[in-house]
Amino acid sequence: MSTISRQWKLTARPAGLVSPNDLQLSESTIPALEDGQALARVSYLSIDPTMLIWMADIPQYMPCVSLGDVMRAFGLAEIIDSRHLSFKPGDKVTGLTGLQDHFVIDSKNGAAFQKIPAIPQLPYTDFLGVLGINGLTAYFGLLDIGKPKAGETLVVSAAAGATGSIVGQLGKIHGCHVVGIAGTDEKCHWIKQELRFDAAINYKHPEWKQQLKAATPKGIDINFENVGGEIMEAVMSRMNVYGRVVLCGLISGYTRHDPALSSFSRVLMQSLTVQGFIIINYVSRFREAAQQLGMWKLAGKLKDCHTIVNGLEKAPEAINMLFKGDNTGKLLIQL
Amino acid sequence: MSTISRQWKLTARPAGLVSPNDLQLSESTIPALEDGQALARVSYLSIDPTMLIWMADIPQYMPCVSLGDVMRAFGLAEIIDSRHLSFKPGDKVTGLTGLQDHFVIDSKNGAAFQKIPAIPQLPYTDFLGVLGINGLTAYFGLLDIGKPKAGETLVVSAAAGATGSIVGQLGKIHGCHVVGIAGTDEKCHWIKQELRFDAAINYKHPEWKQQLKAATPKGIDINFENVGGEIMEAVMSRMNVYGRVVLCGLISGYTRHDPALSSFSRVLMQSLTVQGFIIINYVSRFREAAQQLGMWKLAGKLKDCHTIVNGLEKAPEAINMLFKGDNTGKLLIQL
Repeated sequence: MSTISRQWKLTARPAGLVSPNDLQLSESTIPALEDGQALARVSYLSIDPTMLIWMADIPQYMPCVSLGDVMRAFGLAEIIDSRHLSFKPGDKVTGLTGLQDHFVIDSKNGAAFQKIPAIPQLPYTDFLGVLGINGLTAYFGLLDIGKPKAGETLVVSAAAGATGSIVGQLGKIHGCHVVGIAGTDEKCHWIKQELRFDAAINYKHPEWKQQLKAATPKGIDINFENVGGEIMEAVMSRMNVYGRVVLCGLISGYTRHDPALSSFSRVLMQSLTVQGFIIINYVSRFREAAQQLGMWKLAGKLKDCHTIVNGLEKAPEAINMLFKGDNTGKLLIQL
Repeated sequence: MSTISRQWKLTARPAGLVSPNDLQLSESTIPALEDGQALARVSYLSIDPTMLIWMADIPQYMPCVSLGDVMRAFGLAEIIDSRHLSFKPGDKVTGLTGLQDHFVIDSKNGAAFQKIPAIPQLPYTDFLGVLGINGLTAYFGLLDIGKPKAGETLVVSAAAGATGSIVGQLGKIHGCHVVGIAGTDEKCHWIKQELRFDAAINYKHPEWKQQLKAATPKGIDINFENVGGEIMEAVMSRMNVYGRVVLCGLISGYTRHDPALSSFSRVLMQSLTVQGFIIINYVSRFREAAQQLGMWKLAGKLKDCHTIVNGLEKAPEAINMLFKGDNTGKLLIQL
């Protein structure tokens, strides 16, 4: 017996938000199952900001979705028929189901779906949320990269979103002073009153930057960044020395091509680490380094050259030479 | 007997390059030494891009220089008279001498000056270069933050400068494929022929971005960033997954206030770590995280909420809801 699957196929790449020509709903016939196949019916689909990235032909962390293919999406599904040894009717699975209502699991894609254990106390949909990709994102992003310590200040943007709302609660579990940034008073009320964030800031309020300052009197140690753009700038301007920025999303840039975001976008997509570096933080190890450098210099492995300017009175011009590219190697004034 | 010191004092904050009103040369009389004082004569002054930062009243890693004060500068000096127990005439010292030709060392500032050992094989000025602040910057920045591995590709900007020229040579010592970016053909010739960089690219050449691509066929693993702006963008666009960016300088922005640079500027000044984060890199640890998250959820420490959209046909609108801020918590489509 065949089954009809309704599928959203990517037919054009969005310029900004998704417009009616970008996704097309069509029907596809799934033939009767063969040995090694199972038929799954999708019950919930997860809608995530990264879908707009998957739809774009830009550098990213997975291949983009090809035009004509079913749109990629996480989902929860139930097995409704099976000739597959590992899946039986009634099994619930999670994984990249695609933006469709039925699909086939077989030997090629079977490993990509995880069976969901029945935990009566937890709702089924938690496996697309707190226990799913958003919970995992909050967990590893905050704990592995943000490295929260009790008493530190954590700011999270898109704080009422699926990931941000968990990040803030994990921050509270770890003893942080947690400030969330969101876009409506209702969202702010929810994260402050229900989720027990220490402060919630509505970035559409005209005074929100002053409110952010007031809510972070000791500066900011961890920025869990989901948004980018002006919100990121405001948070970054209050970061403390040795702060950590978990660059998890730049949602404000997904609907436009903002050149100012392109380096940060690359940091996100390529899992880069950017570390600001000021040499005075290393004073206690200067001796070790100077000895090694001296040995390399004496061994002829390090060469240098100097551009010498004569006379203290030349100092202002000498400083400007650096910015005009007029020196090679070390620029010195000889007195 | 008193001594006349010629001093450059900061009289205004530069708007762009240093202009004649910003620094003023004046004379100051140093009275006869008292007990605990030594008189130093400066022989070399180090001219560094960071001086333009010290002159600006912007957030930075040290206090900016106050108007009316002697301009801050690294230098090499010789003790020419002393009533100080730790310094005797003929001693050579290095440290923040200031942009002047004579100064007094006493109990307050004595610890800030290091005596230079006499190493006949090494020129005196190396203590302002290869063995000084630039060598140390290259050493810790590349080795501690860049973490070079043999066979990796390292790109350094301002490659013919005091720091960049050492960074590239340290990269070669550690077996990297080293590409330098500089602003004249002469500089490129020097770093390629004399310093043995694998490639040198003149960013004023119209084809320089294609040359960068050709010189980095395996992408870029380490960016030792001294410049920022367009050069940084071009390098970042070729970074490999898990690449490291040593943000050591943003010299292209020091003479102007470029808002696009402000977050990176804060990363630099505050020694922040920014790490791009994609959850699929953590697949092997999902089970660990889900168990912990489930326990917190069951204990009532993690709350959530869902925004549910009904019907597969609503998928395009649902995606757009994310970017309009129309959801609180997890956005799901129920089928």
